[in-house]
Amino acid sequence: MFDYIFQLIEENKLIEARQKLIELNEVDIEQILEELPQDKMLRLFRMLPKEIAAEVFAEMDSDQQQYIVESITDHEINDILDELYMDDTVDFIEEMPANVVKRVLRNTDEATRKTINQLLNYPDDSAGSIMTTEFVDLKKEMSVAVALEHIRQTGMDKETIDTCFVISAQRKLEGEITIRKLILSAPDSLVADIMDENVKSVKTLTDKEETAYLFRKYDLISMPVVDNENRLVGIITVDDVIDVIEEENTEDFHKMAAITPSDKEYLDTGVFSLAKNRIVWLLVLMISATFTGLIIRYYEATLSQVVALTAYIPMLMGTGGNAGAQSSTMIIRSLALNEIEFRDSFLVMWKELRVGLLTAAILAIVNFARIMIFDRIQVLVALAVCASLFCIVTLAKVIGGILPIAAKRIHLDPVIMASPIITTILDAVSLFIYFAFSTSILGIA
Amino acid sequence: MFDYIFQLIEENKLIEARQKLIELNEVDIEQILEELPQDKMLRLFRMLPKEIAAEVFAEMDSDQQQYIVESITDHEINDILDELYMDDTVDFIEEMPANVVKRVLRNTDEATRKTINQLLNYPDDSAGSIMTTEFVDLKKEMSVAVALEHIRQTGMDKETIDTCFVISAQRKLEGEITIRKLILSAPDSLVADIMDENVKSVKTLTDKEETAYLFRKYDLISMPVVDNENRLVGIITVDDVIDVIEEENTEDFHKMAAITPSDKEYLDTGVFSLAKNRIVWLLVLMISATFTGLIIRYYEATLSQVVALTAYIPMLMGTGGNAGAQSSTMIIRSLALNEIEFRDSFLVMWKELRVGLLTAAILAIVNFARIMIFDRIQVLVALAVCASLFCIVTLAKVIGGILPIAAKRIHLDPVIMASPIITTILDAVSLFIYFAFSTSILGIA
Repeated sequence: MFDYIFQLIEENKLIEARQKLIELNEVDIEQILEELPQDKMLRLFRMLPKEIAAEVFAEMDSDQQQYIVESITDHEINDILDELYMDDTVDFIEEMPANVVKRVLRNTDEATRKTINQLLNYPDDSAGSIMTTEFVDLKKEMSVAVALEHIRQTGMDKETIDTCFVISAQRKLEGEITIRKLILSAPDSLVADIMDENVKSVKTLTDKEETAYLFRKYDLISMPVVDNENRLVGIITVDDVIDVIEEENTEDFHKMAAITPSDKEYLDTGVFSLAKNRIVWLLVLMISATFTGLIIRYYEATLSQVVALTAYIPMLMGTGGNAGAQSSTMIIRSLALNEIEFRDSFLVMWKELRVGLLTAAILAIVNFARIMIFDRIQVLVALAVCASLFCIVTLAKVIGGILPIAAKRIHLDPVIMASPIITTILDAVSLFIYFAFSTSILGIA
Repeated sequence: MFDYIFQLIEENKLIEARQKLIELNEVDIEQILEELPQDKMLRLFRMLPKEIAAEVFAEMDSDQQQYIVESITDHEINDILDELYMDDTVDFIEEMPANVVKRVLRNTDEATRKTINQLLNYPDDSAGSIMTTEFVDLKKEMSVAVALEHIRQTGMDKETIDTCFVISAQRKLEGEITIRKLILSAPDSLVADIMDENVKSVKTLTDKEETAYLFRKYDLISMPVVDNENRLVGIITVDDVIDVIEEENTEDFHKMAAITPSDKEYLDTGVFSLAKNRIVWLLVLMISATFTGLIIRYYEATLSQVVALTAYIPMLMGTGGNAGAQSSTMIIRSLALNEIEFRDSFLVMWKELRVGLLTAAILAIVNFARIMIFDRIQVLVALAVCASLFCIVTLAKVIGGILPIAAKRIHLDPVIMASPIITTILDAVSLFIYFAFSTSILGIA
């Protein structure tokens, strides 16, 4: 199908191509347009029916949106803005340069302009920034028949009518009712009598991660957003929440790998931005790794007496780091999913201690056997290595388990406590333990 | 509110407590019951109206479900099963021991039993395993009025009616129609004329991760599942998809930290399971870390000539590992979100090469300055260290960028290519580079 459309476009049969295009989902249409040279993309875009054009426009990336807005007439801009949902309009405007924003705002009426400006003002991480202002609001005193008629008259433009929210005369949120319930109820029943008063809502400034958590917890499809006086100002739909969830996860992945998070896709990010997002942490970690160098230099005399000791440093530091990263990652993830709270600290510590002792014992025994069989060094050196390994792994587990919880407690991001920061801490700890055991077991200074 | 209910229960005022409980969301009711001693939990649970009881039951963890099923009468089991959605029934049965499963199945009719058995057979990672068999199916030849009447008669039991799917006489999927469209259309129009034929569907055996991707891409709320003959057999709803997304992310986080993934929550997992999930990779990585030890032992003579070299080993290996982990994590995440494909390999390599050269240069210069100012060692040693650092970081970026794509190409999980496997590879590479530069720049053997 896609290939056939591309072929039609290639042969300049744009009318036929348009006919095929409009049968597709808007996401697919956008993917096809994205592959075309700009002039053909523009010509096809202008041939789309205006509802479809608006949906396709909402899916485009900002470069293409800007190109289109700069190439079409005010009248066409107006048509698109009329059809766009408010949250998509705001997402689009946020990315445009000032002159484009001016032109777009000139093409909207006073009320829309005011709403746009208000939405633009919500902080990036707030529920307000992902809500839309198009929703069906029912009044408590409406009958089911009146409510359905109200939905028929206003519902076509609204982002979702599957759940309608019920407000009082003062626009305060009073309850919710599903369209299903409305259809199944007697036409003369009152909305107030059949609505569900137990409705979950968020404030405009609620963190959007917290909002996503509520969607997950209560299996919601949409959720009302209220202001400080509990007046209904917008709704959030689950598709935007899924994007929030994936964004937050990407952020956590990046932070765990010591990258400053950015919300641009990899292929769209320039080399300098990528380098900038990575260099800070690399520098910090490189400098802090010099501490391990200092420790080694301090024990230079020890190492030169038993040179064999040096060969085990990477293994000890590596295993300690891995053991710690396992614990911290599990705890960080559990914290992110709200499965663990601060009150579980001792439980976690106790669990990690036991897991640590168990895994450390296995590792130490296997390693001792391996050293004795393959490396053929003195038993005492092997003992020093394995005793160190045992302590390092156990300690790594406990530290890795508790640091993220401690970080969250003092309102730091638990993720920054993950590897490689924990690894860096554990590197230094590992060396101290190793040299302590080596000097005492081998009786050197 | 919660506190008040707990107080009522404490004072054994269960009737009043029940009154308050049933005003809450089922998720909140479950959270309260979960905190109670088992006998009180059971007594309150049995006092709940049966629709609410079923919803609360679906939210419980399997230990509690089992306790309840073993304590209530067949008649009560029957009531709960009647109200439970099919996907929740299957989730519950999957976790029960054989005798409980037998008793539950005895309390269902032939048709339900057949459906349950069929659903139990879908592999854990398939779309079939998360679908439900309760949905509204409309026929093409129905009029809007008939369709709405059909929904009224059957819709109450169905998990979602926001989008209805349209089937042919042979039960083949033909299209979809939103309830909104039905309400807004003339009662005598035919479903076939107003339905959307461009409907996205998955097969029962489609990977559930792929299914989640389609939900995300097309902003879906529900999606039909068809068999190999394109017959409609179930639907998947977005709330279950969100769970899939979070599960997959948890799995990726765990794999990146070298933990064998498990779908149990941390606090519910025993010490032995935790240790088992961690020890395998720790052993593998410990053994492979001994290669770095071998390299060091091979160059023992070099190190004993210039002992100062040893002190920089952890810094070089650490920085190389961090630089590689940054690249691999970014690429792995982009692959997971389908932002990067195999055809982008050269783009990625070229980008990582430039980012690598840029960051490597900065790190090498800063490090050279730091060494000369603080460590006061020979310039040649500093040169050897910084030349190595430059090559290691550049190489780490390119390897870290390309390995995950290569892994995906040969159908391996890109995540296993992340740290710490990449770190282990880079550790060995780093050492070789370091010793090569040291011996040639310092003119030692």
